[in-house]
Amino acid sequence: MNSDFSRPGVRQAPASSQDNSSSAPSGAQPETAPPAAYLQENWRPNPASPLPLHLQISACFSARISSGSWPAGMKLAPQRELCRQLGVNRSTLTTALGTLAGQGLLEGRRGGGTRVTAAAGGNSSTTPGSWRNYLEEGTHYPNLPAVQAINRLEFEPGLIRLGTGEPAPELLPGAAMNSVLAELAARPLPPLSYEEPLGNPGLRSAVSRQLLKQGIQADPGSILITSGALQGLQLIALGLLPRSSTILLEKPSYLYSIHAFQSAGIKFSGLPMDESGMVVSKLAAEVLRTRAAMLYTIPSFHNPTGMVMDEVRRQELMAVSGGLGLPILEDGAYQELWLDAPPPLPLKALDREDRVLHLGTLSKAASPGLRIGWIVGPEPVIRRLADIKMQTDYGASSLSQMAAARWLDGNYHEEHLTLLRSKLRERRALMLQLLDAHFSGLASWSIPAGGFYIWLALDRPLPLRRLFETARRAGLLLNTGDLYDRGDSRHLRLSYAYASPGELQSGLPALAAMIKEPHKAWP
Amino acid sequence: MNSDFSRPGVRQAPASSQDNSSSAPSGAQPETAPPAAYLQENWRPNPASPLPLHLQISACFSARISSGSWPAGMKLAPQRELCRQLGVNRSTLTTALGTLAGQGLLEGRRGGGTRVTAAAGGNSSTTPGSWRNYLEEGTHYPNLPAVQAINRLEFEPGLIRLGTGEPAPELLPGAAMNSVLAELAARPLPPLSYEEPLGNPGLRSAVSRQLLKQGIQADPGSILITSGALQGLQLIALGLLPRSSTILLEKPSYLYSIHAFQSAGIKFSGLPMDESGMVVSKLAAEVLRTRAAMLYTIPSFHNPTGMVMDEVRRQELMAVSGGLGLPILEDGAYQELWLDAPPPLPLKALDREDRVLHLGTLSKAASPGLRIGWIVGPEPVIRRLADIKMQTDYGASSLSQMAAARWLDGNYHEEHLTLLRSKLRERRALMLQLLDAHFSGLASWSIPAGGFYIWLALDRPLPLRRLFETARRAGLLLNTGDLYDRGDSRHLRLSYAYASPGELQSGLPALAAMIKEPHKAWP
Repeated sequence: MNSDFSRPGVRQAPASSQDNSSSAPSGAQPETAPPAAYLQENWRPNPASPLPLHLQISACFSARISSGSWPAGMKLAPQRELCRQLGVNRSTLTTALGTLAGQGLLEGRRGGGTRVTAAAGGNSSTTPGSWRNYLEEGTHYPNLPAVQAINRLEFEPGLIRLGTGEPAPELLPGAAMNSVLAELAARPLPPLSYEEPLGNPGLRSAVSRQLLKQGIQADPGSILITSGALQGLQLIALGLLPRSSTILLEKPSYLYSIHAFQSAGIKFSGLPMDESGMVVSKLAAEVLRTRAAMLYTIPSFHNPTGMVMDEVRRQELMAVSGGLGLPILEDGAYQELWLDAPPPLPLKALDREDRVLHLGTLSKAASPGLRIGWIVGPEPVIRRLADIKMQTDYGASSLSQMAAARWLDGNYHEEHLTLLRSKLRERRALMLQLLDAHFSGLASWSIPAGGFYIWLALDRPLPLRRLFETARRAGLLLNTGDLYDRGDSRHLRLSYAYASPGELQSGLPALAAMIKEPHKAWP
Repeated sequence: MNSDFSRPGVRQAPASSQDNSSSAPSGAQPETAPPAAYLQENWRPNPASPLPLHLQISACFSARISSGSWPAGMKLAPQRELCRQLGVNRSTLTTALGTLAGQGLLEGRRGGGTRVTAAAGGNSSTTPGSWRNYLEEGTHYPNLPAVQAINRLEFEPGLIRLGTGEPAPELLPGAAMNSVLAELAARPLPPLSYEEPLGNPGLRSAVSRQLLKQGIQADPGSILITSGALQGLQLIALGLLPRSSTILLEKPSYLYSIHAFQSAGIKFSGLPMDESGMVVSKLAAEVLRTRAAMLYTIPSFHNPTGMVMDEVRRQELMAVSGGLGLPILEDGAYQELWLDAPPPLPLKALDREDRVLHLGTLSKAASPGLRIGWIVGPEPVIRRLADIKMQTDYGASSLSQMAAARWLDGNYHEEHLTLLRSKLRERRALMLQLLDAHFSGLASWSIPAGGFYIWLALDRPLPLRRLFETARRAGLLLNTGDLYDRGDSRHLRLSYAYASPGELQSGLPALAAMIKEPHKAWP
C-alpha cells in the first residue's frame, strides 16, 4: 500500500509552481493523507482538508478493511468511543458508517454494534497498489535482458558499437533532410490532422513508385504506412495469427531478437541456411510437422548473416510454398542496400497469387528517426492491419509521412543511396581488411554483397554473455549470436554501418585479443 | 490454395518496369507455376524456367500431397510411367523423389514402389494458404463495425461530422506550424537516428515544463513520449496488466470505444457519474467485488460527457483509492482545453504516492498529425513501458518530436491555445443556441466548461445503429452513445470542435427532425 519507489520521479508540485502560467489551474494544496497513516490507531481526520470529515473517515476505514487490518467479522468500537478517538461528532461518524454500509463493507445489527462484513474480508495478497507487482504483469514480454542493455548502452557515449544495425549518424542525410524540411516549410502546410487509416495518400503513391523499381507493382490501396517495419511485424503478430500458431523462419533470424510474435503467443520453428539462403528442401516436412501458419524470411542481405537468397532458391521457395499454400512474410528492409550488384527480384515480385506480405522501411537507407515503413499485401489483409494500426496509435506522424513523400519524390532518396553505398563499400573494405589481419585463425566469415552485417563464425564456442560483459567493460558494444538464435555460442553480428573507421581500427583488434586469450581479458 | 481475392492489389510487375532504374534488380521473369496447375493431371515441368526440373517436380508433388490430392498411403505410378507423363528423364525424377523422401513425404519400399507416407497425409482443413482465414485470426479485436465505419467515412468528402473528437482543420495551427518547420530547417538538423527509449530528451524537458503549469512536477526521466495518448493506453494494456484483470472506469467512457484493453483480455467495470464526476462512494465495494487492478478516469472535460470532476471529488477519489491501494490511470487529453476557467488540479498533482499514471497529448490542443503524447509515472513503470514501446515501433518519429519540442519551447503552444479557446467558445455558443432552438422537448444536455463534447441525452430511447445509418444517408456522421457504453440507446456525443458553423446550422436541425419523426426519415 506504500509506494515502492524510493526515488519517485514524480513529486507533488510546490505551491510556487502553480501560478506561473495563464493556464494555471485553480485549487488548494492537496491534503490527501498518505494511506499508511490510515492504519495508525491514532489517525484523526484533518479539519483543514477540503475533503469533508465523513469522507476522510470512510476512506480511512475502507483502507483498514481492504488491507486486512480490520478483518471480516471484526466488531468496531462503540460509536461514542469512535467519536472520541476521531474527534468528530456523532452525525459525522454515522454519515461515514452509512457510506461504508452502503458499500457493503460494514453491517450493523440491532443491538449488536457494527461489524466488518464477511464479504469485505481484506486480504493483502489481493490488494493492488504496488506498481512493483505490475512490472511483472502484462502480456507483452520484456525485451531480452541483453537487448534491454543494448538499447540503453547505445546512448552511453564512448562505447564502440560493433554490431549496431543502423547507419552511423554521419552516414545519414544531413543537408538533404534540411532541404526536405525547407521545401515543406516554404509552402503552406496542410493541417496536421489524423491521416487516412492506410496512411498519407501522397506517401503511398511515392512508395508505390519506389516499389516498381524493385519489380513490385502495388496499388496505393494495397500499401499500409507503418511506424517503421518493426510496427509492421507487431501488427501482423496481433492481427493475423492466432495464439500458439507457428512461424517458420531462417535460423538465425532478426525475429528471434524481438518479441513481437512471442508476446502474441506465436511459436518459431527455424530452418537452416546454406550459401544460397534458407534450405527450402526442408520446408514441406516442416510445414506438415508444425502446421506453420506463415514463413518469415529476409531474402536480401539477411539479418544477421548478410546472406542473399539466390534466384533459383527464390523460385524454389515460391514454388514449394505455393504448393503448400503457405503465406510468406518477406522482410525487404535491406533490399536497396546492395553494394556490388542488385539482388534478385524480391519474392513479392514473383508472387502471382498475392500470397506474400512485403515489408519495407526508410530506416536503413534513409533515416531511422523518420519511423516510416510499409506493408504491401492483399487489400483485405492490409485493411485488417490498418484497422489495428488505428487502434494502436491512429497512424504514423503526418509530418514524417509528408517528409518521407518529399524524400522519395524529390529524388533525394536515390541520390542518398548512391552516396551511402559508396561509404558502406569503404567501411566494408576496412572491416574485411581488419578481420583478415586480426581474426585469421580465430573465426571465419563471408563477404556480404550488401546490407550492414558480417556474421563472424568463431572457430570455437565461447560463453557469449560473458564475452558481451567483458567487451562492454572494455568499451565495446557487441551484438552476440545468441540474440538471433538462442542456442548459439559461436557467432557475432558485426556491422560496418555504425562504428567509425577509427573505432573499427581500435575496436576489432581489441575484440580479437579478447577472443584469443579469454583468460587474460575475462573477469 | 488459390488466391481468394478477385481484385488483388499487388500484381506481378511487367517486364518493362524492371529496368527503369539504377537499382533495378537482375533476374528473369518469374516462371513459378500457379499451384492450381500442380493439381492438374497433365501438369509438366517447364524447361524454360530457371528452376531446375527436379525442383519443379518436387514442388508439384508436395503440393499434391499437402492438398490431400495424393492421400497418405497412395502408391505412385511406376517411375517409367511418371517419366513419360512428365517428359523428363529418369535421373531428374529420382532426384525429385529423393528430395521428397528426404522431406518425409514419400517412402520407397524395396520392390513395393513409392508411396505417400502415412504421416504426410494431406488434410485440406489444416492447409493454410488462404489469407481469408487470417482475417478472423489474431489476438487483437477488430474495431467495432461502427468505429470502422467512422474511421472510413471521416475521409469521405461532404459528410457533416457532428461528433468528431478532433479540432477542425481550420482550428489547427497553419502558419505557426510552418514557422516551427522553418526554424528546424534553418539550422543543421541533427541526424534522424533512433531516439532514446524514453524519447527525445529535449521534448521530455519541454513536456516537463508544460506539466509544471498544470501543477505536475515530473522529471524528464519519468516521462515516456508516445505516438499519441492512444499508444500510451496500448502500452499499458500490453505491459502492466495480466489477462482477465479488471479496470474500473466511468460509464460511459472513451475506453469502451477502443479495443486496446479488451484485446489484451482485460475486463471493464463501469462506475456511474453524477454532476461532480465519477461516483466515488461506490468505488470501494466495486474494487473488492472485482479485485480491480486499476482505475481509468478522464477527470477534466470527460469524453464523451464533457463533465469535470470537481475538486472535492478528486480529493475523495485520491483518498479512497489510496486507502484501497488502487493505481489510477488519469487521461489528461483535454486538461488544457478549458473554456471558462481552468479545471481543478489533475489527480497527478495530488499524488503523493506515485500511484497515478498520467497521460497527455498534443493531439487535441495542437495537431493530431504530430502523433505526440506522453505518459508520466514512476520511473520503473515508465522504463517497463518504454521497453515495450521499443519493441512496438522503436519510438515516435524524431521529426515529430523535434517539432513538438520547438512547438512547446517556442511558446507557439500557449499562443495557439488562446486562439483555439476563443474559437471553441464561439462554436460552443452556436451549438448551444442550435440545441435550444431545435432539441427542446427532444433531449437535454449540460453546458460543457471545456473540451469538445456535449452529451446529448435523448428524451426517449432510439435504435442508435439505425439512427447512425439514417443520418449517414442524409449526410451526417454521428458518434452514437453505444460506442461509449454498449447498452446505451439514448445518447449522442456531439462535438463543436469539428463541423463548421455552417455545417452545424444545417446538420443539427436535420438531426433533430430525424429524431423527432423517425417514421418519416428512417428506412
